[in-house]
Amino acid sequence: MKKLINAPETVLAESLDGFAAAHADLVVLGEGRKFVRRVKSKPGKVGLISGGGSGHEPLHAGFVGYGMLDAACPGQVFTSPTPDQMMAAAEAVDTGAGLLFIVKNYEGDVMNFDMAREMDAAGRRIETVLIDDDVAVEMSTFSNGRRGVAGTLVVEKIVGAAAERGEDLAACRALGERVNKATRSMGVALTSCTVPAAGKPTFVLGEDEIEIGVGIHGEPGRRRAKLAGADALARDMVAAIVDDLGQARGEVLLFVNGFGGTPLMELYVMYHAARTRLEERGLTVIRSLVGSYVTALDMAGCSLTVSALDRDMVALWDAPVHTPGLRWGM
Amino acid sequence: MKKLINAPETVLAESLDGFAAAHADLVVLGEGRKFVRRVKSKPGKVGLISGGGSGHEPLHAGFVGYGMLDAACPGQVFTSPTPDQMMAAAEAVDTGAGLLFIVKNYEGDVMNFDMAREMDAAGRRIETVLIDDDVAVEMSTFSNGRRGVAGTLVVEKIVGAAAERGEDLAACRALGERVNKATRSMGVALTSCTVPAAGKPTFVLGEDEIEIGVGIHGEPGRRRAKLAGADALARDMVAAIVDDLGQARGEVLLFVNGFGGTPLMELYVMYHAARTRLEERGLTVIRSLVGSYVTALDMAGCSLTVSALDRDMVALWDAPVHTPGLRWGM
Repeated sequence: MKKLINAPETVLAESLDGFAAAHADLVVLGEGRKFVRRVKSKPGKVGLISGGGSGHEPLHAGFVGYGMLDAACPGQVFTSPTPDQMMAAAEAVDTGAGLLFIVKNYEGDVMNFDMAREMDAAGRRIETVLIDDDVAVEMSTFSNGRRGVAGTLVVEKIVGAAAERGEDLAACRALGERVNKATRSMGVALTSCTVPAAGKPTFVLGEDEIEIGVGIHGEPGRRRAKLAGADALARDMVAAIVDDLGQARGEVLLFVNGFGGTPLMELYVMYHAARTRLEERGLTVIRSLVGSYVTALDMAGCSLTVSALDRDMVALWDAPVHTPGLRWGM
Repeated sequence: MKKLINAPETVLAESLDGFAAAHADLVVLGEGRKFVRRVKSKPGKVGLISGGGSGHEPLHAGFVGYGMLDAACPGQVFTSPTPDQMMAAAEAVDTGAGLLFIVKNYEGDVMNFDMAREMDAAGRRIETVLIDDDVAVEMSTFSNGRRGVAGTLVVEKIVGAAAERGEDLAACRALGERVNKATRSMGVALTSCTVPAAGKPTFVLGEDEIEIGVGIHGEPGRRRAKLAGADALARDMVAAIVDDLGQARGEVLLFVNGFGGTPLMELYVMYHAARTRLEERGLTVIRSLVGSYVTALDMAGCSLTVSALDRDMVALWDAPVHTPGLRWGM
């Protein structure tokens, strides 16, 4: 295992300490590194809390800040955060307008966020939005139902802007569910990832093999296949996404997400291929995002996310955001 | 070779087409893909033009836009752009206030940018700033003298803000030279990179080997070494940088740059390690940048850049920038 780390046991702590120091104008690390929160809470605003296993950076802590999340709870690498983390975050960012948990659909995450809600003795109003945008498989290694993947960014951005605008808890939750329903993703891996504590690749791919529909922890997808060109891959992935979305014509957001080991040059090749395929199917790309935002440690590969956003969602996507990982308009 | 591409011959064209489509609000691709330029030139502003081999994305095309570059000329992968590209870019963005070429110190780049100046028949005022921030080696495979690496971003950002503020050509050039002199970088590779047209790794590293002082094309650095922890690597690299900078005490920008195959989690571990080492040496980190901005295709590893900025340079660093690859303040 070749990584820029000191030891598997200290990766998370050192990475979080570095992150908090680099972005001290935006975020604060909670006691015991249980959560990352915005430097300053906004009274009367619905508090958005997300989290999950680490190794997907910048998701989630990198999306804490103005116009996005109020707090994020980082678990160990590819391991759910514990309920006491969510409870500590809830206490830190609750300003009385209620809290929305944004949870990727993995059994551990769902269970622990639910437990935190149930354990809350302060009588806080807490609602949950579950993200399950991955069309690759209906059941998976760590999920009951579809997995939540890169579409989580789209939900966090749009609901974050709505909360900033002053929408109440019920409206934020309903919006989150609508954005999730309008969003589909699918990934492909060219290589495995290596969890620091494991010290060896999570799975093994041959020199000419890829995993189509891979999950963001290296979970199996739809099938192993022979290495194919960007156009062929994009055709397969766009077909799976658009068929599932059931959106014959319309305007969409296209988000090409790198998994951590793939450089931007290749992501733009995939963007070009995916955009062309979408246009062939009568869809118009009106918003774009290209970069490594929802990663799987050092895995090479990418995912495509397509969101059929309505006009208000587009306005909320465009609204100013100021976080370590995503920033525009301010 | 496993890459998200169609064919080595079409990587650059497809990547540029995808890039231009994704960022059509900011950039336009010139005829024959000779250059990428800002959507709209600003009359009376000094035009900043950079460029170099592709494979370092988002550098340089990703830094075209408000507050940074006016145009960038992309060569083939790890290959200098040709003089006709710079001439076409010069013609496209010249508004009469003169042009500044920002050139990384590689023989091919220096020669071709110089040739473009000499071939200019329109009598344009063109000056050049040469970037040579890499302290690793004094001479290298492709350079006469030190190489220009990630510090190029710092020069392009600060001079870009100065040009936007209305500084004239002589002032922009002098500022660029001062920022270059205040900036030092050094890199480390954990793996090789693979040039698409070559189809195999540029160099070979053993399972437990790293290349200290590597260049952004996989050129040899100072030495092969055994894989070491982040703290030990940061200590070596910070020592080389700070000793060369000759800055005993003061305030600095710390830029931790990923080479393309290294995820953000590890870059923050390196940031934490490097910041700690800088503080031990009496330096205070007042500005930070962490991410993959000056890459070497899919190489795993990172570079550290330290800039001892004066007060005006810090203000220019903080000034609004709106490019595909770097954005804040607007």
